[in-house]
Amino acid sequence: MITNRQIVLAGRPKGMPGLEHFRFVDAPLPEPALGQALVRTLYLSVDPYMRGRMNEGKSYVPPYPLNEVISGGSIGQVVESKHEGLKPGDLVSGQWGWQQYATANAARLSKIDTNLAPITTSLGVLGMTGLTAYFGLLDIGKPQPGETVVVSGAAGAVGMVVGQIAKIQGCRVIGIAGSDEKIAYLTEELGFDAALNYKTEDLPKALAESCPLGVDVYFDNVGGAVSDAVLSLINTGARIPLCGQISLYNLKEPDVGPRVQTQLLINKALMKGFIIGDYASRFPEGITQLAKWVTGKQIRYAENVVQGFENTPQAFLDLFSGENIGKQLVKVADPE
Amino acid sequence: MITNRQIVLAGRPKGMPGLEHFRFVDAPLPEPALGQALVRTLYLSVDPYMRGRMNEGKSYVPPYPLNEVISGGSIGQVVESKHEGLKPGDLVSGQWGWQQYATANAARLSKIDTNLAPITTSLGVLGMTGLTAYFGLLDIGKPQPGETVVVSGAAGAVGMVVGQIAKIQGCRVIGIAGSDEKIAYLTEELGFDAALNYKTEDLPKALAESCPLGVDVYFDNVGGAVSDAVLSLINTGARIPLCGQISLYNLKEPDVGPRVQTQLLINKALMKGFIIGDYASRFPEGITQLAKWVTGKQIRYAENVVQGFENTPQAFLDLFSGENIGKQLVKVADPE
Repeated sequence: MITNRQIVLAGRPKGMPGLEHFRFVDAPLPEPALGQALVRTLYLSVDPYMRGRMNEGKSYVPPYPLNEVISGGSIGQVVESKHEGLKPGDLVSGQWGWQQYATANAARLSKIDTNLAPITTSLGVLGMTGLTAYFGLLDIGKPQPGETVVVSGAAGAVGMVVGQIAKIQGCRVIGIAGSDEKIAYLTEELGFDAALNYKTEDLPKALAESCPLGVDVYFDNVGGAVSDAVLSLINTGARIPLCGQISLYNLKEPDVGPRVQTQLLINKALMKGFIIGDYASRFPEGITQLAKWVTGKQIRYAENVVQGFENTPQAFLDLFSGENIGKQLVKVADPE
Repeated sequence: MITNRQIVLAGRPKGMPGLEHFRFVDAPLPEPALGQALVRTLYLSVDPYMRGRMNEGKSYVPPYPLNEVISGGSIGQVVESKHEGLKPGDLVSGQWGWQQYATANAARLSKIDTNLAPITTSLGVLGMTGLTAYFGLLDIGKPQPGETVVVSGAAGAVGMVVGQIAKIQGCRVIGIAGSDEKIAYLTEELGFDAALNYKTEDLPKALAESCPLGVDVYFDNVGGAVSDAVLSLINTGARIPLCGQISLYNLKEPDVGPRVQTQLLINKALMKGFIIGDYASRFPEGITQLAKWVTGKQIRYAENVVQGFENTPQAFLDLFSGENIGKQLVKVADPE
């Protein structure tokens, strides 16, 4: 008998999460109702924002309930369909999360066009991460040709797309990341004008040298002292999309630093948090444009695929070690 | 012989400014060139933002040069005109600042319509301070009926107008100020729903009680710990116009506190600095609307008029003692 292996939230971490906060359970294979399909998971997405949902309090999105499946982006193949728009074998993406099988209403599943790009891109550059970069940078950051754009977490799944879109817009682009391997990747492979290792360089000094005309857009994935350094260099009229604050997600103490208000005030600057769900009505526009750039090789991407469903919690935890480049995925099964 | 008594910047303060940072000088009466008028000052404006211009570094606007007249809003009467649009006796406002006489191009002078309201309002509720409240609140804060609006520095010239416009928009309005006299004025005279004394109350607790539905708009004139308390209560989609940070202007040490980014991020909130000059093309719209509200008694205002040009520096310094209610002016002369 086939069971549906799932990963549920076993506890709410204080500070850094660990394997003990997740539990594997075996559930019966679900039955699709009318209008639904049963899908078999091929790939799972693990993302930094999930850390916020492990807390009880308010975050971008509601907290994960205890003892329920961790939801998130997934790719799968239809096994059984009770909707005319889907047939067995179809490749789909959805939000069914960390489980080997799921049933979902057809409307909650998106068919993947494998002519555009490899299927894994629908969880990355042509999925939520790419769209987050696209709308956060273009809609809030509004980069103009010749402007200087700084992105933190630049070698992450979102950051690397942000930097490349900013290059396409004609900007000078500086990435901040945490290893020399990432720095080399950003400048040598992705065309960033400069990239700075915040762990080994004097960041305020290196940034000042790399941004002689100041900073017009700061796309922030990281927060903390890295952001303090960038914010000290913003120009009049700067725009600061807040996408993530990964350096802070696992802090046990309140995050304290120089208050930003004076710097925003004297520069008439804008800082805005956003989540990609707010742009849902414009996803088709974003995916179409991103797909053009990807197929035209104007945007390159990196994926790091961990093999095996059982390694999902560790793949998630590894996001916080700062070693991954690009989109972190878990491969659960091959398509049939 | 008539001389033109002026006040120039004598030095750049570190921390709180004092009388020693200003110097009185006597200059010859200027001669208007073709297209100019000679005006005699009747009232001067002293404003918190001027503190920023006393520093060497970047602020809203360029620093005041040493040994030059402190510029700022003024009201005067035309003494001599070499422009057909102005004649002796006309009442005008402009930016000629802290001096008893000035020449200015006619285009830089605005005739005051004394049918609308007393002439002093053209430096206050119908001048820069009213416009700052109007555009900062409506254009950045975008208050919606039923929302909760909090304003700090609520008994100041800008804050009191912000709160009243928010009431006109149908919002619940909470003011924060620093004396029981101000608190009483805000609730009893201006119709604020609540006002909190940050010096005597437990502000986080009092705010939570006064804002049971959270905070949708925070119009910030003050910064520092007062803002920390308000920001902990913002709702999803909150808007935070940054107008001033008066609690910080005279600090000698860097301003440190809880970083706001996580709070902005999880609430998808917007924080934006602005200066009123950016809205210059829309001033007529703002003044027309403000004048309607003032003449209709929907907006009331307070002015605190110090007598005598020689008291200008002290009137400016008193802005930082936190005791003034409403717009601080200096009366220099009566109209003829």
